[in-house]
Amino acid sequence: MELAKHTLQQLIAGWLDEDIGSGDITTNSIVPAAAVTTGIIHAKQPGILAGVEAAEAVFKLLAPELQFTTHLQDGNRLEVRSVIATITGSARAILTGERLALNLLQRLSGIATQTAELVEQVKPHPVRVVDTRKTTPGLRALEKYAVRVGGGANHRLGLYDAVLIKDNHIKVAGGITKAVEKARAANRHTVKVEVEVESLSGVAEALAAGADIIMLDNMDVATMRRAVRQIGSKALVEASGGIHSTTIAAVAATGVHIISVGALTHSVRALDISLDIGEIKAPPQ
Amino acid sequence: MELAKHTLQQLIAGWLDEDIGSGDITTNSIVPAAAVTTGIIHAKQPGILAGVEAAEAVFKLLAPELQFTTHLQDGNRLEVRSVIATITGSARAILTGERLALNLLQRLSGIATQTAELVEQVKPHPVRVVDTRKTTPGLRALEKYAVRVGGGANHRLGLYDAVLIKDNHIKVAGGITKAVEKARAANRHTVKVEVEVESLSGVAEALAAGADIIMLDNMDVATMRRAVRQIGSKALVEASGGIHSTTIAAVAATGVHIISVGALTHSVRALDISLDIGEIKAPPQ
Amino acid sequence: MELAKHTLQQLIAGWLDEDIGSGDITTNSIVPAAAVTTGIIHAKQPGILAGVEAAEAVFKLLAPELQFTTHLQDGNRLEVRSVIATITGSARAILTGERLALNLLQRLSGIATQTAELVEQVKPHPVRVVDTRKTTPGLRALEKYAVRVGGGANHRLGLYDAVLIKDNHIKVAGGITKAVEKARAANRHTVKVEVEVESLSGVAEALAAGADIIMLDNMDVATMRRAVRQIGSKALVEASGGIHSTTIAAVAATGVHIISVGALTHSVRALDISLDIGEIKAPPQ
Amino acid sequence: MELAKHTLQQLIAGWLDEDIGSGDITTNSIVPAAAVTTGIIHAKQPGILAGVEAAEAVFKLLAPELQFTTHLQDGNRLEVRSVIATITGSARAILTGERLALNLLQRLSGIATQTAELVEQVKPHPVRVVDTRKTTPGLRALEKYAVRVGGGANHRLGLYDAVLIKDNHIKVAGGITKAVEKARAANRHTVKVEVEVESLSGVAEALAAGADIIMLDNMDVATMRRAVRQIGSKALVEASGGIHSTTIAAVAATGVHIISVGALTHSVRALDISLDIGEIKAPPQ
Amino acid sequence: MELAKHTLQQLIAGWLDEDIGSGDITTNSIVPAAAVTTGIIHAKQPGILAGVEAAEAVFKLLAPELQFTTHLQDGNRLEVRSVIATITGSARAILTGERLALNLLQRLSGIATQTAELVEQVKPHPVRVVDTRKTTPGLRALEKYAVRVGGGANHRLGLYDAVLIKDNHIKVAGGITKAVEKARAANRHTVKVEVEVESLSGVAEALAAGADIIMLDNMDVATMRRAVRQIGSKALVEASGGIHSTTIAAVAATGVHIISVGALTHSVRALDISLDIGEIKAPPQ
Amino acid sequence: MELAKHTLQQLIAGWLDEDIGSGDITTNSIVPAAAVTTGIIHAKQPGILAGVEAAEAVFKLLAPELQFTTHLQDGNRLEVRSVIATITGSARAILTGERLALNLLQRLSGIATQTAELVEQVKPHPVRVVDTRKTTPGLRALEKYAVRVGGGANHRLGLYDAVLIKDNHIKVAGGITKAVEKARAANRHTVKVEVEVESLSGVAEALAAGADIIMLDNMDVATMRRAVRQIGSKALVEASGGIHSTTIAAVAATGVHIISVGALTHSVRALDISLDIGEIKAPPQ
Repeated sequence: MELAKHTLQQLIAGWLDEDIGSGDITTNSIVPAAAVTTGIIHAKQPGILAGVEAAEAVFKLLAPELQFTTHLQDGNRLEVRSVIATITGSARAILTGERLALNLLQRLSGIATQTAELVEQVKPHPVRVVDTRKTTPGLRALEKYAVRVGGGANHRLGLYDAVLIKDNHIKVAGGITKAVEKARAANRHTVKVEVEVESLSGVAEALAAGADIIMLDNMDVATMRRAVRQIGSKALVEASGGIHSTTIAAVAATGVHIISVGALTHSVRALDISLDIGEIKAPPQ
Repeated sequence: MELAKHTLQQLIAGWLDEDIGSGDITTNSIVPAAAVTTGIIHAKQPGILAGVEAAEAVFKLLAPELQFTTHLQDGNRLEVRSVIATITGSARAILTGERLALNLLQRLSGIATQTAELVEQVKPHPVRVVDTRKTTPGLRALEKYAVRVGGGANHRLGLYDAVLIKDNHIKVAGGITKAVEKARAANRHTVKVEVEVESLSGVAEALAAGADIIMLDNMDVATMRRAVRQIGSKALVEASGGIHSTTIAAVAATGVHIISVGALTHSVRALDISLDIGEIKAPPQ
Repeated sequence: MELAKHTLQQLIAGWLDEDIGSGDITTNSIVPAAAVTTGIIHAKQPGILAGVEAAEAVFKLLAPELQFTTHLQDGNRLEVRSVIATITGSARAILTGERLALNLLQRLSGIATQTAELVEQVKPHPVRVVDTRKTTPGLRALEKYAVRVGGGANHRLGLYDAVLIKDNHIKVAGGITKAVEKARAANRHTVKVEVEVESLSGVAEALAAGADIIMLDNMDVATMRRAVRQIGSKALVEASGGIHSTTIAAVAATGVHIISVGALTHSVRALDISLDIGEIKAPPQ
Repeated sequence: MELAKHTLQQLIAGWLDEDIGSGDITTNSIVPAAAVTTGIIHAKQPGILAGVEAAEAVFKLLAPELQFTTHLQDGNRLEVRSVIATITGSARAILTGERLALNLLQRLSGIATQTAELVEQVKPHPVRVVDTRKTTPGLRALEKYAVRVGGGANHRLGLYDAVLIKDNHIKVAGGITKAVEKARAANRHTVKVEVEVESLSGVAEALAAGADIIMLDNMDVATMRRAVRQIGSKALVEASGGIHSTTIAAVAATGVHIISVGALTHSVRALDISLDIGEIKAPPQ
Repeated sequence: MELAKHTLQQLIAGWLDEDIGSGDITTNSIVPAAAVTTGIIHAKQPGILAGVEAAEAVFKLLAPELQFTTHLQDGNRLEVRSVIATITGSARAILTGERLALNLLQRLSGIATQTAELVEQVKPHPVRVVDTRKTTPGLRALEKYAVRVGGGANHRLGLYDAVLIKDNHIKVAGGITKAVEKARAANRHTVKVEVEVESLSGVAEALAAGADIIMLDNMDVATMRRAVRQIGSKALVEASGGIHSTTIAAVAATGVHIISVGALTHSVRALDISLDIGEIKAPPQ
Repeated sequence: MELAKHTLQQLIAGWLDEDIGSGDITTNSIVPAAAVTTGIIHAKQPGILAGVEAAEAVFKLLAPELQFTTHLQDGNRLEVRSVIATITGSARAILTGERLALNLLQRLSGIATQTAELVEQVKPHPVRVVDTRKTTPGLRALEKYAVRVGGGANHRLGLYDAVLIKDNHIKVAGGITKAVEKARAANRHTVKVEVEVESLSGVAEALAAGADIIMLDNMDVATMRRAVRQIGSKALVEASGGIHSTTIAAVAATGVHIISVGALTHSVRALDISLDIGEIKAPPQ
């Protein structure tokens, strides 16, 4: 994961607070503080693993001395019963951290798995499947990471790291050319300018304006193919808008360089991952 | 929403920071600071609306003087083209806040809609459909709110506000009776004790131990019916484990009081909601 | 303590900042950075110890490598001169952390001691002495912990984890029955409903409404006894309102299950606990 | 109060979160969102009022449009039934904020009242009664404010704003003279240096070293009187150590300039203050 | 400024806390709370104004009802005695906020002024003068804003929004070509790749690798000119390394597109700006 | 440094977030996670070193296991090529932390160096060179530390730890005498009162009022000398206002005890310090 370690820890700490609040009253009243056990995280559904580092951080924050042994890495393929990690240490920490660790693993692996399915569909073509800004509030860094784990790539991180000129921007600027000019003039030279267009005349204007990336928004496949030919190597070409598993292969075949899919992160099926806890050994009290 | 206003604002501010970072470089370079416009939030798919207050908070945080007029309330049914709200004011604020507001509305309305579908299935029966702790990290309060909007109810908020004794707790305590005793002794009298059981003998032991709620975990419908009869009015009965839209009606018919469904929040399909922006009026510069 | 370790550390860090600000200018200017010493925390008054873990966290945050050896545990009885803990390490850390560590120990031990005195009074009776929400802002988790250490128990944590219907709620709802119905309908099934009543007719209405807990507010002992008989095992019975050390035994004798006492936390006498610092050994500079 | 407004609001917001968590489930389920009422804050015990501004901030944070009318100011004398403030607005906000507002008023007024009692005892003498660092963690600014409201004054705020050389510092420095020299040399010229002494020879050495303030620690009254004479106007003289209401007048009569009393803040009796809520008017739903 | 309003307010609140701590003890003890006055912010040195919005936020945070009237805007030229803004309202707020407001105005205007001086030097050439990451920790957004106000432009915001391949990256990758390939493959398509080179052969390799921007590091002017010719319009060309006011014109004349100057932000001379306070009117007490 | 360790770490973590955001995309895409290297921090300009502890904290936060060996201490004199520290460990951490570590070292060493230059000028005289509140927002503790490292001393930390009565305060109080009286009466006895005067009659009034420190504001050297004689040992004398390297010796010769210089922190030239990175050893992948 590319998050700095202390940033990941801060996120995890906040999420633990959300679940634990003033204490896990079931576990604390029943399981002795000194009890130890072993937990095994395993898959109950095939897919692509993502989030192991986050799961480890959950348990380590609750009990720094606990052992977390990883058997599979992010990006590895999971089969039913694949063992992902073994955790040995404080039974309280394992029981208390279980839900958050699984929530993260299930969601991130769900994203990685859905991404891998789409990536598989476009395999013959040299095209990137990328995410959008339709991520869950507060989880963007982790969700975009999971897309990469699944073989996808990322679109911009937010509103601050790339220019994406949409129809409303074009209207207020008075045309694509003026919008691109304003964006170039006002922004740092390290920033790429992408323009969203809906027609071939839009493509022509964006090309003439020197856009770095041209997004073909909701175009049919035939028009896309013409746009790709028109653009050649003068700009990157991105297809966008309502693309899903049954249409993505045809889109990829048009020769676009990038296909962005909002559903990668906005409609996620959790991957079924589970934690089995062994015998809890409590010292005599 | 039951969140204190300042708590909701803190969440929104953090999520805006995630998306905006050091600034919306597209909008800020193209749209004049003084430009005004009107945006219309409307549905593109039928469903149940949830999250209007959060969406309003997004825009108000960016431009406190902006007008946000609500046409539909949380819990209202949406049809294609239903107009949810009209926003009038700073064009920059409307363009910059659009994505976060929609991400929230789509996710929360998606949860409310899925919940309402399940609630519809159990309608003839006096049963509650409730969520679990399988929520998105950082969003629990909002997601549990959306479940209520959809006609569902909530299970405990976290590990701190109710006792839920599962098989690992029972094993370490040496039986249901001892586990319930320990939980009662160590915890505040205002807290209910729920016990998860997998068999009718478990039901009997939990009843004898005085559990307030008995969770029937992954039981078949016939056994559930027997359990319900066995328990009568001595405890609340909750069905749990892999229940979904095709099985929920049969479960409800057994007479359980509560049905908990993890998928309400862990596998959400965003509801398609969109923001149309009108003409942007920029004063002469 | 049931607080997650990182939550306790965050609290302590904030409190150290309050006291240390930009630095302990006395110690830093006089005691060499490399100087080491041993401190002994001991009681100067008899009572019940509470807060050792918090005291340790104070010193460990200032100097992680310091040795903190515990001789008595929370809940142990203190006599004059009882040695609670020995601290060995950085003299600066010990001198700088002293005041916060003692403030916590004295306050929490004061609460535990006062609680134990009341618990002692009701000993022959199977009754719980519990706290209220009259805690010091920011210290609720720690103060409620100290009550438990002293042999008491806790009432609800806050406004979110149990329903407590008071007279204003009853008035606006139009009676106890309607208030209980609304509370049940709108809230999660894991939540208990407590009703505050001032008369035997209130008791009757609360019982009929199915309250889980009935709070007898400011009743005289004779009426309380009648209420207890009336309720039997149909609900928990809690006595509340101006109960103190000279009246608590009589209240307990009525057969109520719970006695709540605001003074446990709102009027705390600090227990006198002190830190003696041995010879400070500074390496030659 | 001298806290910046936004600092007070941050504190209050954190304390509200502690109490409200995910929502006041009683009030929210029973009292309609649009209901309004009037609350009257009044005293049930005589004393000195402190904390009105904090109480107002509690309600205003929950409902900014609510009216909070102050009838008495901090520092005013309270009699039984004195009306402190009237609150008109959202019934939910008034019921939800009640406990925190009262907890603050009761604690701060308790401190102001205890302070005023001691100040009354020393009235004939030109002496200041001051607090110590024995404050509740997280509440130092408010508690020190309440001491001032009660007619007392403050000692240093923390370890950072004045030098106070105690016996351990003296030992490690090798004498009072060296300790004062080191403290002067290493610290800013705007900082006063106070030295704690236990004997008249200590007084002599501290005077010679040029201490700005000399603290007479646990001295008997006769020795104190001699110390005061010895010091004259060459330094401020502070008496400290186990001084309470029956001894403070005699200490004041010795001519010391300052008397510090830890019990002002470490053992506070809450002053009984209450909130009466009028008829709750709910619009027809 | 492109910072979201609430982000700027959070920064300002933190900085006020740093200066005010527990209160402005001079002003609060001498100036009545109800006193009002007028302050005039004016220049004592010629330069370019930057930071007016931040200064306003300082005073508004202390006293929201205060009037802040702007006479000059960011980017305007200041002469000695130019009046920047007039502030009317709480005398306490004006006195307490003065230093932070001036610290911000002086620093940001200092940056804008230095930037404008360099921009003036390169005027005949179509070149951008840009900043670096050598900003003051915690102030990057504001300092980069001030550079833009002064007529400069910004380089990347941080390590996350553009790729800048330096010699160590090249060495570990095994050459420029491989480094660029790895960076392209692993990063989002919206990100530009810049390569730092020290020789014309480096330029050739970077061009062949398809770098978007080529940074000429510490090259002499003659070599730069050759590099510019070699690159043509195939990439943006940036000059970097020890460029200052006496050399920048010659660098600009080589035809580079961008000149980056660390000293714009790492060695700032504050611009002399002052706040004159009028008569303080205190109501009779 | 006198900052508590956890406070320094919090500051560093925030500053790393500012620079790293969601990840160092250059280093992470090119340098393997397991690669190790050695970095050498060395001076490229003579001066006084300050900030080593902060630099170490930067790298340790990114990679706790990394070795940071210090060859020179804060306060040591740097020559061109002086080696300050050697860092061995994760190549990613060293490359990613480089800029923040250098920004801190360069700024703090710049302050220490400028301070030492002024201190050198006044060497024959027993006078302190002190800073002001003209520090960079958010960096006050570190910048004041650097002044001490350079042989200077600190003025008050903020508005809360000493009284400094300026002309506006005097005007509103109705004279120096009244202002001092009010400040003494309202403030803690541990606080010194400084008065800013512009004339010898002001000096006389401040002396009579019992000011602890008298600040001679913008006086010519002859008048200063008269003021020093007039004050004798009755108060500390501070010279202030537009003093710089060419005038400071003459000011020191007047016999003032303290000279405050805003430029120590408001106009800092960064000292040129650099980090050379050795061969990066990546394990075979």
